Amino acid sequence: MIPPESFLLDRTEGTLQSRIQQMVAQGILSGRFRPGERLPSSRKLAQHLGVSRITVTLAYTELVADDYLTARGRSGYYVSDNAPEPPNFTPQPPQASTVNWSARLGSSPPSLGINKPQDWQKYRYNFIYGQSDPSLFDSANWRLCALQALGKKDFDSLTSDQFDQDDPLLIDFITRQTLPRRGILAAPDEVLLTLGAQNALWLTAQLLLAAGKTAVIEDPCYPSIRSIVQATGAEVSAVPVDAEGLPPEAIPGGASVVFTTPSHQCPTTTTMPLSRRRALLDRAEADDFIVVEDDYDFEMTFAGPAAPALKSLDQTGRVIHVGSFSKSIFPGLRLGYLVGPAPFIAAARALRASVLRHPPGHIQRTTAYFLSLGHYDALIRRMSKAYHTRRQTLDAAIALHGLTVAGSNAYGGSSVWMRAPGIDTTALAETLRAKGVLIEPGAPFFASSGRTDLQPSEFYRLAYSSTPTSRISDGIATLAMTIRSAPVLF
Amino acid sequence: MIPPESFLLDRTEGTLQSRIQQMVAQGILSGRFRPGERLPSSRKLAQHLGVSRITVTLAYTELVADDYLTARGRSGYYVSDNAPEPPNFTPQPPQASTVNWSARLGSSPPSLGINKPQDWQKYRYNFIYGQSDPSLFDSANWRLCALQALGKKDFDSLTSDQFDQDDPLLIDFITRQTLPRRGILAAPDEVLLTLGAQNALWLTAQLLLAAGKTAVIEDPCYPSIRSIVQATGAEVSAVPVDAEGLPPEAIPGGASVVFTTPSHQCPTTTTMPLSRRRALLDRAEADDFIVVEDDYDFEMTFAGPAAPALKSLDQTGRVIHVGSFSKSIFPGLRLGYLVGPAPFIAAARALRASVLRHPPGHIQRTTAYFLSLGHYDALIRRMSKAYHTRRQTLDAAIALHGLTVAGSNAYGGSSVWMRAPGIDTTALAETLRAKGVLIEPGAPFFASSGRTDLQPSEFYRLAYSSTPTSRISDGIATLAMTIRSAPVLF
Repeated sequence: MIPPESFLLDRTEGTLQSRIQQMVAQGILSGRFRPGERLPSSRKLAQHLGVSRITVTLAYTELVADDYLTARGRSGYYVSDNAPEPPNFTPQPPQASTVNWSARLGSSPPSLGINKPQDWQKYRYNFIYGQSDPSLFDSANWRLCALQALGKKDFDSLTSDQFDQDDPLLIDFITRQTLPRRGILAAPDEVLLTLGAQNALWLTAQLLLAAGKTAVIEDPCYPSIRSIVQATGAEVSAVPVDAEGLPPEAIPGGASVVFTTPSHQCPTTTTMPLSRRRALLDRAEADDFIVVEDDYDFEMTFAGPAAPALKSLDQTGRVIHVGSFSKSIFPGLRLGYLVGPAPFIAAARALRASVLRHPPGHIQRTTAYFLSLGHYDALIRRMSKAYHTRRQTLDAAIALHGLTVAGSNAYGGSSVWMRAPGIDTTALAETLRAKGVLIEPGAPFFASSGRTDLQPSEFYRLAYSSTPTSRISDGIATLAMTIRSAPVLF
Repeated sequence: MIPPESFLLDRTEGTLQSRIQQMVAQGILSGRFRPGERLPSSRKLAQHLGVSRITVTLAYTELVADDYLTARGRSGYYVSDNAPEPPNFTPQPPQASTVNWSARLGSSPPSLGINKPQDWQKYRYNFIYGQSDPSLFDSANWRLCALQALGKKDFDSLTSDQFDQDDPLLIDFITRQTLPRRGILAAPDEVLLTLGAQNALWLTAQLLLAAGKTAVIEDPCYPSIRSIVQATGAEVSAVPVDAEGLPPEAIPGGASVVFTTPSHQCPTTTTMPLSRRRALLDRAEADDFIVVEDDYDFEMTFAGPAAPALKSLDQTGRVIHVGSFSKSIFPGLRLGYLVGPAPFIAAARALRASVLRHPPGHIQRTTAYFLSLGHYDALIRRMSKAYHTRRQTLDAAIALHGLTVAGSNAYGGSSVWMRAPGIDTTALAETLRAKGVLIEPGAPFFASSGRTDLQPSEFYRLAYSSTPTSRISDGIATLAMTIRSAPVLF
């Protein structure tokens, strides 16, 4: 008889029933409970754990269904003779590795350049970019779509190994609805699903760059794109952006690939005007380089429709367009896409197959339902409305405290680019963190080559994607107070 | 008034209600239906589509909730003034790309070497390896775990951007339950989740190989591993395996990394005996190379417990262990793991973050529940039982028709390695396909360097993971008949 005291409800995840089920299964799998042993009666175990008897009975019934336990009439539940067997050998404690790993692994792998506390959700005033707000998310409909995608009808197609094709439902929606709204018409063989936008950028960099080629990135830019490009061995040229984004005339000769963020320059938030987009494409044709358009955040337009994508102006098939659902649905989703000429997409598909085969089928199909049933657009509208209010509150607080805006997009987005003259924002962020305020220091966005026209450490980013309106004013007040008492260095 | 004739039920996916909802949402998103326009009455649309009126009403109600439609008392449903706006520009039809992509993309990307028809599920006698059998899968409990993982309590952690850590619940289960059953004790910082085993192998190859290094692979081997290793620029040495797997004494001097499949050699299915495992590890220490153990298919042991992993014998921390849930749960899941010394895992984590950030959180949490509630082990037992029966039927059919077995694992697995003396199995597979029988020709498993001791084209693989027992005998009879009438070439 296994004593009730063997069981201790120490986990906080899952329902009570599932926690009991887990305890019994793990006792059997680890060999603590052996075939033929009798479990405590549901009454005794319920009493010991302080839960209702029906909860224990339901857990036992589930375990019988999976053949961990057998029920013997009125005499109770026993560990089944067919229960999984524990290993019949004792695992060896691991030994210290005698391998010189630092020599083996060579140069340290690229840093993502992201400086974000793991526990950002615990901070009261969180102005970190790119995290979602669960209170805005339509989790009920997402759950329904996930269930529908797990239904019998869909199950076969989801569970098989689709290494060289994507979910046709999702591709159909992207080509017929999502891309036309960006001004883009693309055939299914011109679109590839990726593990988020970062994976799309990574695949593109691998295919188009190598030692001996030159990549142009914006300065400042999304830090991950810089490390991705550097890791290819290509020469990297960081071109300073101005109030209209990347200036085409500043692109050096001999560029192979230019990475740009025309919709909302990252991190300065500005939108590239149409004339400059045309000039960039003319330059691309003249110099025969490829333009990679990271179209992040385009949906968050609350004051007028989004401008068409750069890709929509592409007459010579030299723009690779990167989109993502991760920002607008939730970052943990990891689903994005590449749009480009068919030969490029075919190569990206083959590389993706080698690296990871394909994005999980269930994620693809759930997203397809969420989009096609209209929930996605409803979500975007709800988010845009909330962001609009937050932005107005933020703008007012910034004005009230006389903080300096370095870049801000009148039409939307989810962040503003700020400047604290003379202040080192990396140290500032540390001080603020102790006060429950999270901001993003600006230095990591800039190329290490150095800017002579400005002081990178003065800048910082304030995002409002996961900050409720009610907290913005207080958070900005604390920020302003802390800036006033910070040492002026430059 | 939008006429009912605007609607045509042409899709086959989803419920009737969701199909109606999609039609309306897409009509609005594409600009065909404008704000203020009146929808057909539920009665008229139901009549036109031949569905019940309540189905149409439910679809309309959902669309009202998402603000696509508004209901105006008894006068019906109208396109909402707040409905998403269609793009206010006309997408340009794509132009032919003027870029010379074949020059840009350089050498064609690595082929996966997989020759599997897309529509393999439609064939009656499917002996292709690595596809799951939906009839064995516990989709009811998987769905429940997915729902639990999408519950409010879990939602926040799943949806955030966990770029540098994995789901603690899943890591806890793997380190405390899964790995000890393979004889391995590992700390959480010695385990990394990956997008399936292939992604684990890819990350390992990137970190440990480069031009100037030598990789050793088995000959024959899993074709993807060969292309992954070749793509790093390392020199590749393919070592012929024998009836006991990879012979350690045949490994050439100067190897940096050795990729091996000790549990079930892929594709010959043999298990490496303990003495040879010890010799391999001694050789690894003497020559200072790293051993990458692909521990695929170890769960499918139906005649005795699985042998401990090679990693469990590793005293010097030079074995990297690759495991996967994709084979046993379902291939579309894309979830595997790497086990190795902490410095290696840290580097792999950084590279993973750069390539794809992290596997989707929802997939991680669902798997954690499926494992910890005991459903996984129950599934493995059910699969092993079914595979055992199928294997007995297959062995009997092979013996009856006098076919030649080249390798077969007495303890389990999900395939046998076959030889058709004098026959080109690539042509044979084509002939068989027309008769509804799918087999895997052997040639792609072999290195192109050529074997003088055997004829690669004679071999083929027969898997029974997705073939019901009832079809095995007929399928093998057709195979045997086709082999008898095939031209003898060698």
